[in-house]
Amino acid sequence: MSVNSARQRWEEALISSLLEMTRARDGDPVALDRLAKISNDPESLQLVVEKISRDPQGKYALDNPFTLGNIDLEKLQTLSPDTLGYCYADHMIRNNLKPLEATKIDNKYQFLGIHVTETHDIWHVITNSNTDILGEIKIEAFSVAQFEVSRFWLALLAKNLLKSTIYDIEVATQYMDALTTGWLMGKTAKPLFGVNWNTLWETPIEKVRKSFNIVKIDHF
Amino acid sequence: MSVNSARQRWEEALISSLLEMTRARDGDPVALDRLAKISNDPESLQLVVEKISRDPQGKYALDNPFTLGNIDLEKLQTLSPDTLGYCYADHMIRNNLKPLEATKIDNKYQFLGIHVTETHDIWHVITNSNTDILGEIKIEAFSVAQFEVSRFWLALLAKNLLKSTIYDIEVATQYMDALTTGWLMGKTAKPLFGVNWNTLWETPIEKVRKSFNIVKIDHF
Repeated sequence: MSVNSARQRWEEALISSLLEMTRARDGDPVALDRLAKISNDPESLQLVVEKISRDPQGKYALDNPFTLGNIDLEKLQTLSPDTLGYCYADHMIRNNLKPLEATKIDNKYQFLGIHVTETHDIWHVITNSNTDILGEIKIEAFSVAQFEVSRFWLALLAKNLLKSTIYDIEVATQYMDALTTGWLMGKTAKPLFGVNWNTLWETPIEKVRKSFNIVKIDHF
Repeated sequence: MSVNSARQRWEEALISSLLEMTRARDGDPVALDRLAKISNDPESLQLVVEKISRDPQGKYALDNPFTLGNIDLEKLQTLSPDTLGYCYADHMIRNNLKPLEATKIDNKYQFLGIHVTETHDIWHVITNSNTDILGEIKIEAFSVAQFEVSRFWLALLAKNLLKSTIYDIEVATQYMDALTTGWLMGKTAKPLFGVNWNTLWETPIEKVRKSFNIVKIDHF
C-alpha cells in the first residue's frame, strides 16, 4: 500500500470515528477508545513528545517515566478536606471513578498515554471541572492548550461543536464558554505534564493551584 | 416521509456538507453555499429570529427590513482614511471583494440572510479581522457569540477544528487563539444585527468600534 493511500485510509478512519463519537451519547467509552487509538497516530504522538520535551519538567518525565502506582482513595480521604488528596479522592468516589491500575512502562509513547490517562481526573480537580459535558469541554480545551499539537484533544472539541451544531444548537453558548474558559486556563497554567502528584496530596489544593498558576475563570 | 426520517435525512445532509467543507480548500464557495443552505434550516432560523428579536435594534430591523443598497466603494474611498467608509472600501478593494447587489426583500427570513451576508465584510473591518483563515475563524466565533443559536456559524467553527485535527494539527494553537479572540469580542460587543451602516460611513472607525464596544483582544 502506498504512503498516500495509507494516509487516506487513516483519514477516513479518523472521520468515521469522529462521526461515531458525534452520534454516540456523551462519554461513550467504546467510541472514545476507538477515537483515542486512531487520533494518537505516530505523527501526532511524535509532535506531542517534541512539544513536551521543550519544558524541562516534561523532558525529565519522558526520560524518567513513572506511574502514580495504585492510588489509595480511602487513605487520601482521611486527609484534611482542603488538601489536593482529599479533593481528588472525594471527586473520584462521588463520581464512581477508579484510578488506573499500576502497570509496567515499556517506552515513552506508552508512558505518554498512561500519564495523560492517570492524571486526567487530577486535572479535573485542580481546574475545578465537573464531569458533565461542560466540564469535559473545559478540560479538553485546557488539554489542547497544554499539549498544543494533540489530535486526540482537538478531535474531542471538534466533535462537541459538531454535536451542538447538529443535535442541540441551543447549548452552543455554554459549550463555547466552557471551551474558552478551558483554553485560557490551559494557556495561563504552567505545563502540568510530568508532575508527580504523589508528592502533592497533602498540600492544600489552593496552594497547588497557585503554584501551577491555575487561575479561576468562570465568567466573561 | 415521517418527521423522523426527514430529520434523519437532514442530519445526514448536514454531516455530508460539513465533510465536503472539511475536504475542500478554505473558502470554497460551492461547498460554503451548500452548507449555508442546509444549516440554515427553518428551526435554526426561527431560533435566530427569536434571539435577535430580544434586542430592540434587532427587532426593529426585522420588522422594518432594509438593505444597504448598491454601495459605491469608489465614493467611500474619497472619505478621510480614518472613517469606517474608507476602511471598508479599502478592505473590499484590496481583497477583490464586491458588495452584494441591491435586491428586493420579501420576508424576514430572507432579510436575515441578506443582512448577514451584506454586513459580513463590515464586521470583518470593525473587528479588524483579516480575510485569511485566522480572520475567518475569528469572525465565525464572533458571529456565534452574536447570533447564539446559528447552526451555520457554529458549523464553520466545528469544520475548522476538524480540519486542523485531520490535516494540520500544528495550526491548532493559532486556530484556538483566533476562535477565543472572536468569541470574547463577540460577547463583549453590543448586538450588531440591524445596524444601518449607511449612516456611519463618515464616522471615524475607532468611534464606531467604541460605540459598539468592540474591544481589541490580540493576546492572552
